[in-house]
Amino acid sequence: MYRKEIKVMDCTVRDGGLMNNWQFSDDFVRAVYQACVQSGIDYMEIGYKSSESAFSRDEVGPWKFCDDKDLRRVVGSNKTSLKLSAMADIGRIDPGDIPPAKDSVIDMLRVACYVHQIDKGIALAEHCIDKGYEVCINLMAVSKVNEMDLDGALKDIAKSRVPIFYCVDSFGSMYSENIQHLVQKYRKALPDKTIGIHAHNNMQLAMSNTITAIIENCNMLDATLLGMGRGAGNCPIEILIAFLKNPKYRLLPLLDVIQNHIHPLQKEISWGYHMPYMITGALNEHPRSAIKWMASEKKDDFVAFMKEMHDYELLE
Amino acid sequence: MYRKEIKVMDCTVRDGGLMNNWQFSDDFVRAVYQACVQSGIDYMEIGYKSSESAFSRDEVGPWKFCDDKDLRRVVGSNKTSLKLSAMADIGRIDPGDIPPAKDSVIDMLRVACYVHQIDKGIALAEHCIDKGYEVCINLMAVSKVNEMDLDGALKDIAKSRVPIFYCVDSFGSMYSENIQHLVQKYRKALPDKTIGIHAHNNMQLAMSNTITAIIENCNMLDATLLGMGRGAGNCPIEILIAFLKNPKYRLLPLLDVIQNHIHPLQKEISWGYHMPYMITGALNEHPRSAIKWMASEKKDDFVAFMKEMHDYELLE
Repeated sequence: MYRKEIKVMDCTVRDGGLMNNWQFSDDFVRAVYQACVQSGIDYMEIGYKSSESAFSRDEVGPWKFCDDKDLRRVVGSNKTSLKLSAMADIGRIDPGDIPPAKDSVIDMLRVACYVHQIDKGIALAEHCIDKGYEVCINLMAVSKVNEMDLDGALKDIAKSRVPIFYCVDSFGSMYSENIQHLVQKYRKALPDKTIGIHAHNNMQLAMSNTITAIIENCNMLDATLLGMGRGAGNCPIEILIAFLKNPKYRLLPLLDVIQNHIHPLQKEISWGYHMPYMITGALNEHPRSAIKWMASEKKDDFVAFMKEMHDYELLE
Repeated sequence: MYRKEIKVMDCTVRDGGLMNNWQFSDDFVRAVYQACVQSGIDYMEIGYKSSESAFSRDEVGPWKFCDDKDLRRVVGSNKTSLKLSAMADIGRIDPGDIPPAKDSVIDMLRVACYVHQIDKGIALAEHCIDKGYEVCINLMAVSKVNEMDLDGALKDIAKSRVPIFYCVDSFGSMYSENIQHLVQKYRKALPDKTIGIHAHNNMQLAMSNTITAIIENCNMLDATLLGMGRGAGNCPIEILIAFLKNPKYRLLPLLDVIQNHIHPLQKEISWGYHMPYMITGALNEHPRSAIKWMASEKKDDFVAFMKEMHDYELLE
């Protein structure tokens, strides 16, 4: 299936950083960057764009801020075909702290927001457009949004200058039919915009949901090395690249960085398929309770976790 | 989605045994058995039915033979609603070694065969029917079978007394559209028979392929605890049960046995998603080379494995 319009975004550092407070070494981020360049990946999301006032550098690594001086240590002036992205959370970035695009190695800013923040999200995204960036909006936690609110948000997006809008399965709770339904709705409401897919792997459906999204004409595809990401992680980029027969991509550089940097990290950070994440996914709940559980001494007591979940009867 | 006709078969001991030569303790098999009973699983495949002359007990555990005296140590006379199954490989079982069903705790014999063995498979299956067993045939490695051979085999199955026929993704190489195509073909050729699905997880698609099969009206669903099985393993039964809203099933007993027996075993046996398995799946190759690699000291050298694969250029 060769569709030239498809773009793949590696989110390893940004989404994986949710598991270690973005405390990656320069060498690690450089290895991911070089693998993305060599494998022909279109975009690499290298972290969050946050204001220094929003977080302490004692607690989070440089990839939580994406200050250009930190980025340039790793990517130089990035004279490659790989574009760099940073995600911006509403309320964590003062728009005044965003430099003009011409002064930054960042090419794209992705605004993440909840449905009640959609006006703020559009305002921030259009601010970034005016500063010269590519932008998109990732609407989070849509599996808990009712139809009227979602339709309202889509109308606002349709009227905006934001060219890319993402279907995000924040909780890893969606089945193929949910993805199909949402992407069809997004495409109908936003016929002139590009639709993206960002899937989580709580029920081992991230890769298959990404395929469903491709079939439904999503052309921006998020994925991460070995699926590294929050909780159960994301669509594994190595499976996605093996699946796409697109001649612009190469798998071998991805296997190399997985072998030398990502796989060894699994001994320290337990992202991926684990029972607590599966349970929150099946219950359509935010994974925060599962992440907290996995960080505790009780992490292997799956039965206790299930019993602690408010509505465990649903699954008993 | 409530479909009463659906039956779930746990294959943990049979398929998982491929990773440790069926050297499970009685306590382990008993724990799986009791969890299946308590969770309302329909069938448990407790091993292979093989002749003693085909294998040495010095090399393989009792679940490779499924002799009734071994089984009864674990299940007694199995006065439960859980049915027991054993798989039979062509050439590994002398039909004369199969006792009449009335003398065995085994309820079902599943004949596994390749397309060139379909006549032998049908003969063995009908022999088992005549001895009083439920039977089915699992046609292996169908992703390498050409259309004429497959259509010929389906004609033979259609004429047989075998009531259940399985779509088996032996190499974990199939995408949703492959499953859909095959199951539709099987149902058209075998309108009066039940179709089953047995998926492998090389590309993290086993759960999603099982959902596709359900949508296409497969009613026999194979799965294993924590996906334990050969190579990348199988459809994880805990995700499947969380997905099926069928009131006859309970998830908690499955989480309990995973917590106390299956998850600890992951420290000893490395089934599940690993790069070599992903590579053989993406290449539509038998996982034996990946299993051999994973058992060697080179197991974490993914790049070398890919380069050693005959046709790695396909994926480079």
